[in-house]
Amino acid sequence: MVQATAVAPVPVSTEVYQDLQHFYARQMQSTDDLDVPAWAGSFTEDGVFATNAFPEPLTGRAAIAAHCERAFAAQAEAGIVRRHVMTMLAADHATGPDGDRVHTRSYVMVLETRRGEKPVIYCSTLCEDVLTRVDGDWRVVRRQVHRDDL
Amino acid sequence: MVQATAVAPVPVSTEVYQDLQHFYARQMQSTDDLDVPAWAGSFTEDGVFATNAFPEPLTGRAAIAAHCERAFAAQAEAGIVRRHVMTMLAADHATGPDGDRVHTRSYVMVLETRRGEKPVIYCSTLCEDVLTRVDGDWRVVRRQVHRDDL
Amino acid sequence: MVQATAVAPVPVSTEVYQDLQHFYARQMQSTDDLDVPAWAGSFTEDGVFATNAFPEPLTGRAAIAAHCERAFAAQAEAGIVRRHVMTMLAADHATGPDGDRVHTRSYVMVLETRRGEKPVIYCSTLCEDVLTRVDGDWRVVRRQVHRDDL
Repeated sequence: MVQATAVAPVPVSTEVYQDLQHFYARQMQSTDDLDVPAWAGSFTEDGVFATNAFPEPLTGRAAIAAHCERAFAAQAEAGIVRRHVMTMLAADHATGPDGDRVHTRSYVMVLETRRGEKPVIYCSTLCEDVLTRVDGDWRVVRRQVHRDDL
Repeated sequence: MVQATAVAPVPVSTEVYQDLQHFYARQMQSTDDLDVPAWAGSFTEDGVFATNAFPEPLTGRAAIAAHCERAFAAQAEAGIVRRHVMTMLAADHATGPDGDRVHTRSYVMVLETRRGEKPVIYCSTLCEDVLTRVDGDWRVVRRQVHRDDL
Repeated sequence: MVQATAVAPVPVSTEVYQDLQHFYARQMQSTDDLDVPAWAGSFTEDGVFATNAFPEPLTGRAAIAAHCERAFAAQAEAGIVRRHVMTMLAADHATGPDGDRVHTRSYVMVLETRRGEKPVIYCSTLCEDVLTRVDGDWRVVRRQVHRDDL
């Protein structure tokens, strides 16, 4: 979980909120497009992807990319189209030494469709990110995904 | 239903639309976090929650809180995680004597996940709100939820 | 599919992104409200609606309206409430001679609810639009919907 801060959170500006919505739209599309470079590139070089579905976090862009190579290949082989749907995005400035970062908390639902079948909801999750800007672009420093079913 | 106005609606500004998206993200999260004070506090002191799922509207923050205490306890006991997902938010300024208010119309889908099971969609609803600002923060004056299955 | 451009896409401004979110919220609501004039009117006069679910595209607002008249009547007769839920909206300025246009790429999930039954996901789609402004209002010039199950 993202560390709770003692002081009241400061919501991001309209401009930043918008930027984040747009960033996430493209990020979610990149994973569903099975675009490993785009997906891994949306994390910082030392970015972390942690979830209660994995025994250990994936640490670093290379580890995230390697995981996706395998996962995307399995998904393509199974003929499954996935849609990661992020909603209910809340975003606050981090405080203290991490003042240049942003903390977000959102829902991500994953839809799966097989050819000729109705879509099913693969999982519903809570997604907590720490983000930073690198050369003007948002990057995920740390993502903590909590699957509701585990 | 929110009373239809005779004059054409005036969409809210970019700034207000953004604010409302952010307000709703936190409000939906507060109910799924089973946070009674935050949820009830997102209504005005005399706020109304009406739905075609209840015989009578809940009137006043205290009544809304009392209802949630019971509902959240039952949900926690059943081991259910809920996600209220609001989408397709449309927002217009109210006209006439209610000119300081905003009317919104959106969809709210409720996902439910039980441990070890796939998520299911509990219900799909149309949500119509009248909102006002209290000390700079958005508050719901009246919510009318229409469940599609009833 | 919307033709890929050779040059890097230029994301729309905060103001335009917001406008598009709001436009789409109302457009999706208009189809679920079975409001043929509002739905058909959200396309340009010569607008095109293409999908891998139809053998031929619908070309022109009149053809789009005629299709909806039939589809909406069948839906109403079957007692089905639909909710078109658009998410993960990405929007870029078109380049070259179409510089006044915007290309969007988003997900649209269609929920269906029958009286007394739980909602089901009718389909999950990828939606690619070309939009333009007509007298200040956004209109769809061409929509390409790709159903994930077909």
